Amino acid sequence: MDHFDLTIIGTGSGNTILDERYESKRVAICEQGTFGGTCLNVGCIPTKMFVYAAEVAATIRDSARFGVDARIDGVRWRDIVSRVFGRIDPIALGGERYRRSSPNVTVFDGHTRFGPTRPDGRHLLRTESGVEFTSDQVVIAAGARAVIPPAIAASDIAWHTSDSIMRIPELPEHLVIIGGGFIAAEFAHVFSALGSRVTLVLRGATMMSHCDDDIGERFTDLASRKWEVLFGRTVTGGRTDDTGTTVELDDGSTLSADAVLVATGRRPNGDLLDAHLAGVEVTESGQVVVDDHQRTTARGIFALGDVSSDYQLKHVANLEARVVRHNLLQDWDDVEALAAADHRYVPSAVFTDPQIAYVGLTENEARAMDLDIKVKLQDFGDVAYGWAMEDTTGVCKIIVAADTGQILGAHLMGHQASTLIQPLIQAMSFGLGGQEMARGQYWIHPALPEVIENALLALCGEPTWPSPKRH
Amino acid sequence: MDHFDLTIIGTGSGNTILDERYESKRVAICEQGTFGGTCLNVGCIPTKMFVYAAEVAATIRDSARFGVDARIDGVRWRDIVSRVFGRIDPIALGGERYRRSSPNVTVFDGHTRFGPTRPDGRHLLRTESGVEFTSDQVVIAAGARAVIPPAIAASDIAWHTSDSIMRIPELPEHLVIIGGGFIAAEFAHVFSALGSRVTLVLRGATMMSHCDDDIGERFTDLASRKWEVLFGRTVTGGRTDDTGTTVELDDGSTLSADAVLVATGRRPNGDLLDAHLAGVEVTESGQVVVDDHQRTTARGIFALGDVSSDYQLKHVANLEARVVRHNLLQDWDDVEALAAADHRYVPSAVFTDPQIAYVGLTENEARAMDLDIKVKLQDFGDVAYGWAMEDTTGVCKIIVAADTGQILGAHLMGHQASTLIQPLIQAMSFGLGGQEMARGQYWIHPALPEVIENALLALCGEPTWPSPKRH
Repeated sequence: MDHFDLTIIGTGSGNTILDERYESKRVAICEQGTFGGTCLNVGCIPTKMFVYAAEVAATIRDSARFGVDARIDGVRWRDIVSRVFGRIDPIALGGERYRRSSPNVTVFDGHTRFGPTRPDGRHLLRTESGVEFTSDQVVIAAGARAVIPPAIAASDIAWHTSDSIMRIPELPEHLVIIGGGFIAAEFAHVFSALGSRVTLVLRGATMMSHCDDDIGERFTDLASRKWEVLFGRTVTGGRTDDTGTTVELDDGSTLSADAVLVATGRRPNGDLLDAHLAGVEVTESGQVVVDDHQRTTARGIFALGDVSSDYQLKHVANLEARVVRHNLLQDWDDVEALAAADHRYVPSAVFTDPQIAYVGLTENEARAMDLDIKVKLQDFGDVAYGWAMEDTTGVCKIIVAADTGQILGAHLMGHQASTLIQPLIQAMSFGLGGQEMARGQYWIHPALPEVIENALLALCGEPTWPSPKRH
Repeated sequence: MDHFDLTIIGTGSGNTILDERYESKRVAICEQGTFGGTCLNVGCIPTKMFVYAAEVAATIRDSARFGVDARIDGVRWRDIVSRVFGRIDPIALGGERYRRSSPNVTVFDGHTRFGPTRPDGRHLLRTESGVEFTSDQVVIAAGARAVIPPAIAASDIAWHTSDSIMRIPELPEHLVIIGGGFIAAEFAHVFSALGSRVTLVLRGATMMSHCDDDIGERFTDLASRKWEVLFGRTVTGGRTDDTGTTVELDDGSTLSADAVLVATGRRPNGDLLDAHLAGVEVTESGQVVVDDHQRTTARGIFALGDVSSDYQLKHVANLEARVVRHNLLQDWDDVEALAAADHRYVPSAVFTDPQIAYVGLTENEARAMDLDIKVKLQDFGDVAYGWAMEDTTGVCKIIVAADTGQILGAHLMGHQASTLIQPLIQAMSFGLGGQEMARGQYWIHPALPEVIENALLALCGEPTWPSPKRH
């Protein structure tokens, strides 16, 4: 039986661990699908390429407001698909080839599970095809998967998830999306801007319900004007045949669709690994339990990314991978030497329309913690650049501690939100107070970040002269 | 003869000084033109409204790259002009009405100049129509004006400046722009995107020659592909008649134009005030000399903004106005009590195509200071969002101190540059080092600020674990 120093299950962020310090180690890499993981193949990267094309199309549809009359002659869906995956697929393939050609690395295909840890402490692993091997250390970086509600799974609907919807052969005339979270919101934007009619079916009363209420409600309001949004509905069944797809809802109504996208959440893959055989604790939701150092409950086994993180976000997985890269080379018990992942100020962005980005506490979270807070919603339309864009919907909501002006949360919806939020992430991460931040630096006039400056001034006021604190 | 506690010459940033602390003072406000100053009436605000319409048009023209075939049916120039000035003109008028209705404020029209300061220290002022009054304190906020080269001034060319070009009745078929700086670059972008043919005539060999060389050269290269750019040329004469305008160049050639924009720089208005009569020193270039506290060389007279600043930028003028607002209420000689304007990290943005933003030292400046530096040019196309935009020209250049990683300068050219640069302004203003900045905060994947993260990592490397310094 082969033995390895290190086994990595999953080639998303897990594949970034091996640096020059690992060249002398025997490493097994297990990948049941395509090299590169969710982000590269079916997540962040391809979606944003579609989103940008959608933004171009949306800009054209809205151009008359600015005195520019234009029309879309056609959207070449197949060309978009080819352009996106013509760039991505070779990268995934190149990544796999590189690993297969590394003298110290063995790549195992198919699904890999744990077996019982051996008495000498070596971890046992079994591939789908029956190959067994042992490893001193293991990194679980097995990601997450789309959840399919049982009624849909049991139906005869030919549904898509985010794994497949970007490769469909034709732009659907009518796309039905089940769900109202960030994946639903991004694809609704992509397909509607490119020309599909979009219907969303969601259980709750708002889209983006994980966002701050002001953002979720405003987004839902805008979404309802652009798309058909059916609230408080679940899918009970349906079928796909030669004439298309029929989706049955719990109120007895039906929807005809040319394609159906299920976007009802993602579940960590920790339940698919027989991890208990190695002593790795996994929650009922499939999440591998880790501590601050990314150590699982089994000695020598680390986990990172979507399979174990409270945040299914690539920038978090990347940080956790750097932590694991360091910690694999340390003594398991030497807490002083181990790195810890900082999960205090984790930002998110949703590349829908309008774009959303946020970091820190929502207003509800802050109030539930009984914090004494001040809150400001600043419209993009209040600053010169928002004016230039004729913006009527963009908003920057900032929450600060009433006494110190410390920034507790920031929630942006609008143009460039994922870029605009960076100074706020930076301020929170480095403990910069709101007033100091507003007046201790220049804000270019008339650039869009003035909306942040104005929100902070509204919350924290002008500093007392002679001058704000500078470093 | 009327006497005032305070006289303010100019209603741009000068008009922001009066807060509730000034309600008991008798104030004179002198404005020879339109209330609101350059920024509101002929500068930042209207230009950006035109620029955004131009960006919409440029996006349409470039959409086929993204699989979206579109065409522009027409550009309604008059509608754009109406939309822009239909919003701005009422604001200027409202600002004037407000001042005229304030019981403690007297507004003087026409050009105002100084007379000889009276023996009792009261400053004497004379309006164009011959009215004289005195004032204890004076704020010179008289702005700057477009410079017209003598050969053009002496010619029969019906030229425009940025004061008038935005209100011309028709989009010119062929616009000739004299100059290659930021005003030339912004209007070249606006008019060419909206459909004009644009020719630039400049003395030097590069456009945007005040920028870092890498940015200036790359911009010039891109500009030369889009616009006709004539380098090393000056205008020697010309005329406008019923058939249009002919511009004569120093190589004996001529250009036919439907409109001519002179954008060869702006000169502070300090030479138009007879300021020497009050003891105010003015440089040969017309700039009123001030110290860090915005005090001129004449007791009781302050100056701010384009008339006195090394930076003709609204965000600098706004800061200087806040300084003056404080200092007017202090003892002139009490340096401890006086506020000072911080001019260390002044950013600029140019809303041309691609957008440009910068802060701090250029590479040449850093090398001339014999600093030991490291420099990185990071392409937007290297990060996921740049990829999504199919970006091939965006670049982020960062200059750090080789030993400490302190950020000395940042120069961006590309999409969202004026927003992207804010975290770098913030880092410089608060003394955050490059490595700390790169790894002490999250950068949302796949948002555009990753280009900054990558540039900083290339310069400063990964920090040593367990963890980067946090506050």
